[in-house]
Amino acid sequence: MKKAAVLMGSDSDLPVVQKALDTLDQFGVPYEAHIFSAHRTPEQARTFARTAKEKGVGVIIAAAGMAAHLAGALAAETTLPVIGIPMKSGPLNGVDALLSTVQMPSGIPVATVGIDGAVNAALLCVEIFAVEDASLAQKLQQYREKNTEKTIAKDARLQQDARER
Amino acid sequence: MKKAAVLMGSDSDLPVVQKALDTLDQFGVPYEAHIFSAHRTPEQARTFARTAKEKGVGVIIAAAGMAAHLAGALAAETTLPVIGIPMKSGPLNGVDALLSTVQMPSGIPVATVGIDGAVNAALLCVEIFAVEDASLAQKLQQYREKNTEKTIAKDARLQQDARER
Amino acid sequence: MKKAAVLMGSDSDLPVVQKALDTLDQFGVPYEAHIFSAHRTPEQARTFARTAKEKGVGVIIAAAGMAAHLAGALAAETTLPVIGIPMKSGPLNGVDALLSTVQMPSGIPVATVGIDGAVNAALLCVEIFAVEDASLAQKLQQYREKNTEKTIAKDARLQQDARER
Amino acid sequence: MKKAAVLMGSDSDLPVVQKALDTLDQFGVPYEAHIFSAHRTPEQARTFARTAKEKGVGVIIAAAGMAAHLAGALAAETTLPVIGIPMKSGPLNGVDALLSTVQMPSGIPVATVGIDGAVNAALLCVEIFAVEDASLAQKLQQYREKNTEKTIAKDARLQQDARER
Amino acid sequence: MKKAAVLMGSDSDLPVVQKALDTLDQFGVPYEAHIFSAHRTPEQARTFARTAKEKGVGVIIAAAGMAAHLAGALAAETTLPVIGIPMKSGPLNGVDALLSTVQMPSGIPVATVGIDGAVNAALLCVEIFAVEDASLAQKLQQYREKNTEKTIAKDARLQQDARER
Amino acid sequence: MKKAAVLMGSDSDLPVVQKALDTLDQFGVPYEAHIFSAHRTPEQARTFARTAKEKGVGVIIAAAGMAAHLAGALAAETTLPVIGIPMKSGPLNGVDALLSTVQMPSGIPVATVGIDGAVNAALLCVEIFAVEDASLAQKLQQYREKNTEKTIAKDARLQQDARER
Amino acid sequence: MKKAAVLMGSDSDLPVVQKALDTLDQFGVPYEAHIFSAHRTPEQARTFARTAKEKGVGVIIAAAGMAAHLAGALAAETTLPVIGIPMKSGPLNGVDALLSTVQMPSGIPVATVGIDGAVNAALLCVEIFAVEDASLAQKLQQYREKNTEKTIAKDARLQQDARER
Amino acid sequence: MKKAAVLMGSDSDLPVVQKALDTLDQFGVPYEAHIFSAHRTPEQARTFARTAKEKGVGVIIAAAGMAAHLAGALAAETTLPVIGIPMKSGPLNGVDALLSTVQMPSGIPVATVGIDGAVNAALLCVEIFAVEDASLAQKLQQYREKNTEKTIAKDARLQQDARER
Repeated sequence: MKKAAVLMGSDSDLPVVQKALDTLDQFGVPYEAHIFSAHRTPEQARTFARTAKEKGVGVIIAAAGMAAHLAGALAAETTLPVIGIPMKSGPLNGVDALLSTVQMPSGIPVATVGIDGAVNAALLCVEIFAVEDASLAQKLQQYREKNTEKTIAKDARLQQDARER
Repeated sequence: MKKAAVLMGSDSDLPVVQKALDTLDQFGVPYEAHIFSAHRTPEQARTFARTAKEKGVGVIIAAAGMAAHLAGALAAETTLPVIGIPMKSGPLNGVDALLSTVQMPSGIPVATVGIDGAVNAALLCVEIFAVEDASLAQKLQQYREKNTEKTIAKDARLQQDARER
Repeated sequence: MKKAAVLMGSDSDLPVVQKALDTLDQFGVPYEAHIFSAHRTPEQARTFARTAKEKGVGVIIAAAGMAAHLAGALAAETTLPVIGIPMKSGPLNGVDALLSTVQMPSGIPVATVGIDGAVNAALLCVEIFAVEDASLAQKLQQYREKNTEKTIAKDARLQQDARER
Repeated sequence: MKKAAVLMGSDSDLPVVQKALDTLDQFGVPYEAHIFSAHRTPEQARTFARTAKEKGVGVIIAAAGMAAHLAGALAAETTLPVIGIPMKSGPLNGVDALLSTVQMPSGIPVATVGIDGAVNAALLCVEIFAVEDASLAQKLQQYREKNTEKTIAKDARLQQDARER
Repeated sequence: MKKAAVLMGSDSDLPVVQKALDTLDQFGVPYEAHIFSAHRTPEQARTFARTAKEKGVGVIIAAAGMAAHLAGALAAETTLPVIGIPMKSGPLNGVDALLSTVQMPSGIPVATVGIDGAVNAALLCVEIFAVEDASLAQKLQQYREKNTEKTIAKDARLQQDARER
Repeated sequence: MKKAAVLMGSDSDLPVVQKALDTLDQFGVPYEAHIFSAHRTPEQARTFARTAKEKGVGVIIAAAGMAAHLAGALAAETTLPVIGIPMKSGPLNGVDALLSTVQMPSGIPVATVGIDGAVNAALLCVEIFAVEDASLAQKLQQYREKNTEKTIAKDARLQQDARER
Repeated sequence: MKKAAVLMGSDSDLPVVQKALDTLDQFGVPYEAHIFSAHRTPEQARTFARTAKEKGVGVIIAAAGMAAHLAGALAAETTLPVIGIPMKSGPLNGVDALLSTVQMPSGIPVATVGIDGAVNAALLCVEIFAVEDASLAQKLQQYREKNTEKTIAKDARLQQDARER
Repeated sequence: MKKAAVLMGSDSDLPVVQKALDTLDQFGVPYEAHIFSAHRTPEQARTFARTAKEKGVGVIIAAAGMAAHLAGALAAETTLPVIGIPMKSGPLNGVDALLSTVQMPSGIPVATVGIDGAVNAALLCVEIFAVEDASLAQKLQQYREKNTEKTIAKDARLQQDARER
């Protein structure tokens, strides 16, 4: 199985990014995580992107805030799918990161999820791997069903509460 | 090979979405295209999403404008990767469509590209298929190189023009 | 008397949505409340919308945050009036939910109230029922008058304070 | 049958508002239309709102642009449901009108539709009347079905075009 | 001397509006303050605006938040200068109030100050009265000079601190 | 009678600013107009502001676009009321000019009107002069009544058209 | 004398960027211009940035639109001052490019000018060179004075026109 | 060596601006710091800008919030490079300050850094001085390398943590 690479621009992103790692763990998707900055360690980021495929990476997830260039910079150096997580850091609450991540020029896509959307980034990665992996697809299906059940249970509790009042 | 499904909320989206179809053609990725509206034909959209995988669809691309629910509505009914194209329609130039597409709740990701980013949506789809398809990955590499060469040629022309002045 | 249906996308919406329930109680409008998610329990949401009318529902109120599709998804499945409450959740403070709720395509309206506007959603529902219910209309009139009196009383206190200084 | 009142802040709003009138005509909903400005003819607007109910008006639709106060000003003077259409006029493309219309204080709701959403305002009005009018509800159902069929036909044409290429 | 009228849409605005009252006190400008809501007590607001001039009011200051109609509603009923203070209340931090206050249609101006700009609203009122009142103009001049001196003193302290380090 | 000073940052602002001049003419308010830039001719702008009062100026109107500093720069040099017109120039349609004009720090107010609100700036100036000028106040009243009549006439025409159809 | 390097992400930026080149010509500042894309030719952009200083470049100007990474990517590879021009391209009119250019993380500054601010980018470059070049500083002074004179002349013409009317 | 001048509009800006002073200290760049307000002490600000060059100032850094005119006002009075820091103060979190600082008219550039970007403003200043100062350029290079090493060390620690789990 190919692995995911989960990169973040700063160690301050880790608390949010950890949710992506936990989600990948939940699906048994192997990954490596790195702190690479498009601006402070561009060389490391670039080298990683260029060699990712040969190291068995199938999908790259990149989290960055403010003028968030990390996902785009990686996407420019690989043809692997790159998923961008705009981080809610700084005074603009992530609007800058969202636009810097999603508004990529024609030719170099970044698959952008919502601001601080670490869980969804991991799920999207799992979905991509699941295109050719039926057992992973089944796990996704089960994950969805569990979520559905949780919401149904919450509704049931609400009905219960209503009856008791 | 799995095929792509390219869905749009309205036939007025076709001129932009056509660029996605042309890009898929360029890579030899088979696809089917549909006009399905999350609001006017929700039944059709849902049925398509639910049966997409068994019909050989590997990735869904969904383009919609304004309160753009199409990509999210499809994503809720399938575990295939769903790529959302926010359309630049209406008075807000696609800001509404961007937020309606990208700000999905935890559990149901949509891989969002830039406003009117049809070419990038198709490329992202190709990148996803290429994770397990080496020949497609090679085509992507060539596409990138051709784009690089075009930009280098434009720069060369600029240098030429500068010398001639 | 027809009843209202008050739906919310997540149980985290309940503290705000409770104000809508309290307001309906205040007017003696019967209701049922549910947690239905456009993305996690689309089937349940859809089934509810489709059968709402025959179950005696006259108006649907739907609260959701971020890429808030719930109100629109319900509106697509019923011709009952659907009132949307954009929730102030997530990093964008409800701007995303507002645009996702109000910018509906032509053909499927959602009656949108302000961000976190649960009281107004309930009042709008009461106003709709009151179109054909004179006694409810009278209660609305009294509610308004009480609000007016409260504001007048606050002004009177301000005048009192000014005189005493 | 109760009638609708369709008010607009300026005669420059008429080309957009006309779509609301045409839609009401389509459903056989009687209406009267007026040019009333919250700022230039506040007296007329107020008097209308106060006497609307006794004149047989069941729902008020109000269209205004920029610092769009009309819908809110009317809502303050009646307990009839007031539907607000924020107009796309002026340099901000209707964002100002949207916020001025939808962000009403607690106690006085305005049912807001999308920017320039005249058709949806009319449909919402029809939906409100249809709560207690089964034959109108049926017409709504037919209108929806016709829209669904149109979209299905557009998709069919797209499939046809695809086969012929 | 004419007096100022300082109106606010809600008693929750008082802590901010108090700064306007204090500033008027500082200049010896007489005023009366009221809680009038464009939506909850429109009658009171209107009557006040219509009779303000004959009661000796020269300038009206109106503070309101969200879909802030108060200043505009008063301006529609009087030809006295109306100064609007958009309040920073609600999830949008006053952007809605700013646009609802400043984007008035041609014919009915509102002199808008910054969000929560109560001091500036009072100063603007004093400036207006000072156009024909030389002694008030002199007080304004002194107020400005005192502010200038305070800033100069702060700079001097900074220089002192720098020398001491 | 005191005169108005109407300043603009660039001659490209003249077509919009001309509406302010025409409105002042309509009320018989004397004025002088100038092209002064806060950035290109700061000396001239400052000298004007400092000597305006002694030259008989009662109110200053200042129009500027983008990072619109003109109104604020003048306000810093005079205690006369300064009215700011944010111009709709540049790629942001005047949002930058609006914020640069209205968000003044405490101590130096600018009476801001809507984007491109030249007529309202002139009317506000007239209202300020009318505080102590009963005949001007009467002209304002007549101007308002004429506007009211125009809107009433437009409504009458609409009713006429409706009857004839 | 050191030279400027003027880089742009796409040849479609040239019409705007040409104003920067013309301005540099006007001051006799030597430059070279290039089309380098952070995403399509990252290698070329990087190599240029890394070798710029040794090639006699003193300041880099970089123009890019949308998710404008070019200026930041260059700044990450050199300690020369990098001036960023956010281009007004795409549906968001340059807001995305502005935020992507200016909101750089701590450690890697980009000197950002206004959207499409090519002339100002060139002037800033000249100002930087002029810090240690008295004759260039004098040319800047003259440029400013000429601009001042032009504005004064425009004002004079306005006064002339006013007298003739 | 030329010195930097670091100006701020208010002493409340000092905690953020201090980071610029500390950064300049770190590079051994001499500076003077002042509290000058474009609106409260315009005379002092202007005089400083006009005499800065002859006092040995090479670069001006100016921090201001809300309708942030300081950087632009200084830039209008000197041809030295002026770096603007938009401060995150007030209800709009610095969006107003950013636009007021960066959107300067053609002819008067302000080199704008991110909101609250005091460190980057200082680094940009150092970069400008380093254009003609090889030893300063070397210090910048070392500063960058140290930052790179810090990020590399953080990544190493992350790898260490991953191995230990």
